[in-house]
Amino acid sequence: MTPLNLAADSTELTRAICDIESVSGNEAALADAIELALQRCDHLTLTRNGDAIVARTQLGRAQRVVIAGHLDTVPINNNLPTRLEGDTIWGRGTVDMKAGVAVQLKLAAELHSPNVDLTWIWYDHEEVSADLNGLGRLARATPELLRADFAILGEPSNGAVEGGCNGNVRVDLHSSGRRAHSARSWMGENAIHKLQPALDRLAAYQAKTITVDGLDYREGLNAVAVSGGVAGNVIPDEARMQLNYRFAPNRSAEAAIAELRELFPEYELTVVDQAEGARPGLEAPVARAFVDAVGREARAKYGWTDVARFSALGIPAVNFGPGDPSLAHADDERVPVAQIIDCERALRSWLSS
Amino acid sequence: MTPLNLAADSTELTRAICDIESVSGNEAALADAIELALQRCDHLTLTRNGDAIVARTQLGRAQRVVIAGHLDTVPINNNLPTRLEGDTIWGRGTVDMKAGVAVQLKLAAELHSPNVDLTWIWYDHEEVSADLNGLGRLARATPELLRADFAILGEPSNGAVEGGCNGNVRVDLHSSGRRAHSARSWMGENAIHKLQPALDRLAAYQAKTITVDGLDYREGLNAVAVSGGVAGNVIPDEARMQLNYRFAPNRSAEAAIAELRELFPEYELTVVDQAEGARPGLEAPVARAFVDAVGREARAKYGWTDVARFSALGIPAVNFGPGDPSLAHADDERVPVAQIIDCERALRSWLSS
Repeated sequence: MTPLNLAADSTELTRAICDIESVSGNEAALADAIELALQRCDHLTLTRNGDAIVARTQLGRAQRVVIAGHLDTVPINNNLPTRLEGDTIWGRGTVDMKAGVAVQLKLAAELHSPNVDLTWIWYDHEEVSADLNGLGRLARATPELLRADFAILGEPSNGAVEGGCNGNVRVDLHSSGRRAHSARSWMGENAIHKLQPALDRLAAYQAKTITVDGLDYREGLNAVAVSGGVAGNVIPDEARMQLNYRFAPNRSAEAAIAELRELFPEYELTVVDQAEGARPGLEAPVARAFVDAVGREARAKYGWTDVARFSALGIPAVNFGPGDPSLAHADDERVPVAQIIDCERALRSWLSS
Repeated sequence: MTPLNLAADSTELTRAICDIESVSGNEAALADAIELALQRCDHLTLTRNGDAIVARTQLGRAQRVVIAGHLDTVPINNNLPTRLEGDTIWGRGTVDMKAGVAVQLKLAAELHSPNVDLTWIWYDHEEVSADLNGLGRLARATPELLRADFAILGEPSNGAVEGGCNGNVRVDLHSSGRRAHSARSWMGENAIHKLQPALDRLAAYQAKTITVDGLDYREGLNAVAVSGGVAGNVIPDEARMQLNYRFAPNRSAEAAIAELRELFPEYELTVVDQAEGARPGLEAPVARAFVDAVGREARAKYGWTDVARFSALGIPAVNFGPGDPSLAHADDERVPVAQIIDCERALRSWLSS
């Protein structure tokens, strides 16, 4: 096992850690390489939990900031090893989110005396089922390691600060009818036809944009699955439509579910999944100082990210990392070198000032 | 192997042939028992093809009539052996359609000198995929054996003459959109939402009743399946709804499909299945005489039956048998003894007059 060369520039480091394939469940080699490299950093106290690594400074500063990133990627698809074309690095993980991790690793190694205490966290299993999530595992096993005044998650945000995140619920909407042979359809009640009012309301639904703590959260309500049918000659007695509601963090998941029950009162709704949103958390002075250091206007984050885990722990948290989030998971994901450098500069400046 | 006792009354014979289980694919034992019994009938010429049996008189009559029934049933479900309760026989096959077969077998054995030449056909694999159908196999292998001026299929019709049958087409209706992450649903186009106009039209559709040769055919247009969805966080780019159209036999399956294309012009439709209907065929004098012998008003048959196979060969054909068709395939299928006796009497009277 060769330790990573954390003295390389963050562009080279991005390529090096992308080229150590780490699809969810296969993070061990990358975690080992990172752990080996960090063991040379006397200013950091390391904790390993599975394939998650926590590296902390203990400087007795007035405030502590968590800076975190996940090590895993979605499956590769002929997009490794990385390649550099002009000013862009192409390949799996470049956007989501190893360029962000590279910047973090470099600063973790180099910043011996930051102006806040730092808790660096790199973790596994972000791209899969929530119950496997390495950050969640740490929060359950060693909650004291996550304690902080502010958290930055290195998810791709085009180098801007993206605050908080929308909440996310999924519900199944059920319609029921009565089976009959389709040659005598008037003897039955067609459960698929009974989805019509729900689909009418969905198609007509005007998603809102809601301002929370100064950031605009654009919502969405969509059918993400539909199913029904018994056989080609049977009037179906059951049909199901799964709805995904992305709602601004000005209200709870329970409140969002109540809105859905109000919108579809004649249907049975069952909750499949619910995740709270996170308010942007930009009121705290430490957060304001960070936004100033980045020097760009903060924006709302639409997608659900692990900032919500910090939010649930009472820690204001934002997303900040290189890469265009709309390229996350795309087979042609790619990151401009300039964004990596800018992110490194902004973080370094804020932590050193 | 014990031959069937064709001298038993048709009620006993119904129970005897129901109690020889013959779920589709397992008709051999019943076919063997029938063949053995018929070999004693010198007035019949037998042909065996797989588990189908053809028994013909050769009396040189001016007209020939086919009388046919299938030997197979849908799977049993704790409903064999049969039991007699009061005036009703309960059990798998009593309705669909061994009571009808029992009447036919008894008359085949007893009517040595009917007033028309008769071609009795009992066949296998009616309840399964159309390509296995024993009547279809006979039509391909020995079409000359099916030649006739009129055909009666003993499918349950509550002892009335049910003429012809509706046609039956199934089409898949496709909608397409553009995938996107559901956190940024405005970047995509939701293919499930795009089913809305189709579902609106289906829910509002007024099925027609069309009179063909004096019989009223009630139609139906229904969604029998719907599917779509990629993942809980993805705006789906494809959705599919399967439609089943039951249409009166005044037009072809092609014409019915053209109607669907006109009703859903903005969707791609693919034809899954198409079966022609059958006109009732009650204009022929031989058919009129039969309806008179039954002494009840003829009705339209809604479901598709093998009469359409005769219709396709240019042979007018009707359904006539004991049993309530709405109990076919039901686990509690049962037939009143009186209907069996009435059917036997009507057929005997018509063939002997």
